[in-house]
Amino acid sequence: MKTFDRNEHPHRRYNPLTGEWILVSPHRAKRPWQGQKESLSEDRLPEYDPGCYLCPGNFRSNGEQNPNYEHAYVFDNDFPALLSDDIASDVNTDALFRFQPERGINRVVCFSPNHNLTIPEMYVADIEKIIALWTRQYLELGQHDFINHVQIFENKGAVMGCSNPHPHGQIWAQSSLPTEVEKTQRQLEKYYRKNNSSLLQDYLEQEMQREERIVLSNAHFVALVPFWATWPYETMIISRRHFGSLIAMSHDEKRAYAEIMKGITVKYDNLFETSFPYSSGIHQAPTDKAAHPEWHFHMHFYPPLLRSASVRKFMVGYEMLGEAQRDITPEKSAEILRQLPDIHYKQR
Amino acid sequence: MKTFDRNEHPHRRYNPLTGEWILVSPHRAKRPWQGQKESLSEDRLPEYDPGCYLCPGNFRSNGEQNPNYEHAYVFDNDFPALLSDDIASDVNTDALFRFQPERGINRVVCFSPNHNLTIPEMYVADIEKIIALWTRQYLELGQHDFINHVQIFENKGAVMGCSNPHPHGQIWAQSSLPTEVEKTQRQLEKYYRKNNSSLLQDYLEQEMQREERIVLSNAHFVALVPFWATWPYETMIISRRHFGSLIAMSHDEKRAYAEIMKGITVKYDNLFETSFPYSSGIHQAPTDKAAHPEWHFHMHFYPPLLRSASVRKFMVGYEMLGEAQRDITPEKSAEILRQLPDIHYKQR
Ligand SMILES: O=P(O)(O)O[C@H]1O[C@H](CO)[C@@H](O)[C@H](O)[C@H]1O
Ligand SMILES: O=P(O)(O)O[C@H]1O[C@H](CO)[C@@H](O)[C@H](O)[C@H]1O
Repeated sequence: MKTFDRNEHPHRRYNPLTGEWILVSPHRAKRPWQGQKESLSEDRLPEYDPGCYLCPGNFRSNGEQNPNYEHAYVFDNDFPALLSDDIASDVNTDALFRFQPERGINRVVCFSPNHNLTIPEMYVADIEKIIALWTRQYLELGQHDFINHVQIFENKGAVMGCSNPHPHGQIWAQSSLPTEVEKTQRQLEKYYRKNNSSLLQDYLEQEMQREERIVLSNAHFVALVPFWATWPYETMIISRRHFGSLIAMSHDEKRAYAEIMKGITVKYDNLFETSFPYSSGIHQAPTDKAAHPEWHFHMHFYPPLLRSASVRKFMVGYEMLGEAQRDITPEKSAEILRQLPDIHYKQR
Repeated sequence: MKTFDRNEHPHRRYNPLTGEWILVSPHRAKRPWQGQKESLSEDRLPEYDPGCYLCPGNFRSNGEQNPNYEHAYVFDNDFPALLSDDIASDVNTDALFRFQPERGINRVVCFSPNHNLTIPEMYVADIEKIIALWTRQYLELGQHDFINHVQIFENKGAVMGCSNPHPHGQIWAQSSLPTEVEKTQRQLEKYYRKNNSSLLQDYLEQEMQREERIVLSNAHFVALVPFWATWPYETMIISRRHFGSLIAMSHDEKRAYAEIMKGITVKYDNLFETSFPYSSGIHQAPTDKAAHPEWHFHMHFYPPLLRSASVRKFMVGYEMLGEAQRDITPEKSAEILRQLPDIHYKQR
């Protein structure tokens, strides 16, 4: 019988943040690809686009005019998925037809007035302004009695369903803990109760010793490919200190967070010398006014590209019906990212 | 306070097969779309393509030659994600770095020798031959002592990561219950223990009375948009009789299953008059040699298209970090599908 080698043998890994397993098939990384190619993202955008509804001074589809904003700028989403109305509904007891009205607030955050300036190309000081805005939003939205969770995220690139290349993200704040957050809530809580420590702090300590999955680090944050990563170049930014949300971040930590966000996204752009698509988002403590000592601030990056700027990983058939699956190992992905230059390819 | 109206108000619905919630935003169906358009699928493929590695008589990349098969044909995947070797591994006890070697077998199923004949355009008798082949595979693979689950699925269309338009599906058989199946196993078992009946039988009974989500039905099967559907035109085929797997299907049931598979895929193609992409797959009893009275045979269809042959739903940012989200209600989708013709648009 052969002895297990994680660089050769199919295996499953456990994600302690969701309680779910993923399948790793390291031997399969070399199979040929004859499928769909993504079209390359437009690399030569203007600084200002008169047809863009996010550029300063332009009109949005509801007739409102954007101010001449100079830094990160937030406004209510014109096509919100959630509404803040309080809706009366009978309690519904049928186990097979369960539903509940959901209240919430959706906002859009422009990262920069500049139509073509994404996070990896921004100054750290301007990324700090985005973080400051996120912090104020998390605080303000979380104060509503009907808002128990604030999801801050970005869809970057057409392949990630982003309908406008102007650098921006979104905030969806709502009454319930969304499904994925609820899984993490449960897992963090269980771990904290059992060990009286933060799951991610204990995890980070071990990762710092093992080193092999670390991509970048500074005094306050670490960016790594998690042991259980599902997307080919998935990463997480984890705070070294154990705290639950943006509100708890010191000034120095915010600067370090801006630096590592720039650092990891520069690596991403450098990987295939393209504006690297991803969905990213912050997972932090619920805003349900309870104490959440189990929460540990972190940010996920879920990028779809696999082999080049035009060949992506598809999470389809087996993945939808069975289990998330990857070919390249997380260790290999971390090594590739780690060895990439820290200067953006356009600035070299 | 307004009273809840599921056609107007944002709400969450509970999926009893996974135990997870999804977000429905019915008021949002009219937002404009400025994002990525999918390229249309090639509608004029030849019946035989000398460069296709699945066509009869052609050579595959490993040098093997396909026989001149005339009906559904199965062979071992040349680039398997799973291997059947028995691998020795130390028991691994670290809660944050859990993994396990995984054994399995991957196969490819050509649905037809004809390079351009997808399921909606096939004769029912030929679809029955696919079902017969699936049944033999489920039986044969399930007999291995190291195979506890057999996942039969199809990725159709380039947008679903399908790298070859020749009509084909796959089978991934393995030692563990994959993550998604494990959720359903748990939910079906819990329900069966509590109610001493099949969750899907009880569900189907209520759906037959309510009618609004039924798309098609025959003597043995029903195709419907589940109350908790996440993809815009997601459907399920459920057997009327309570049985756990393909093995238990009578001859008449197999014919009815072939008919409803054709029926629902014809509706799909007619929706946007295009070869409709999807991932589909069968969920049935594990092959772990235990009795599974809780299992109820069903097939899922997860199609990405939303508004036209080129505008899809993206499950990205909020969906990856938070929760699956849809705009159009399942009831509306069912109504649209129900009203479509039963004859394929190319044959009209
Ligand atoms: O096996 P294929 O067709 O080469 O690959 C396709 O289906 C697999 C199973 O769903 C996925 O893992 C791949 O990402 C997808 O491209
Ligand atoms: O809100 P947008 O940018 O119009 O839309 C995009 O992000 C949303 C939140 O992740 C998704 O629900 C949409 O499918 C996607 O296209």
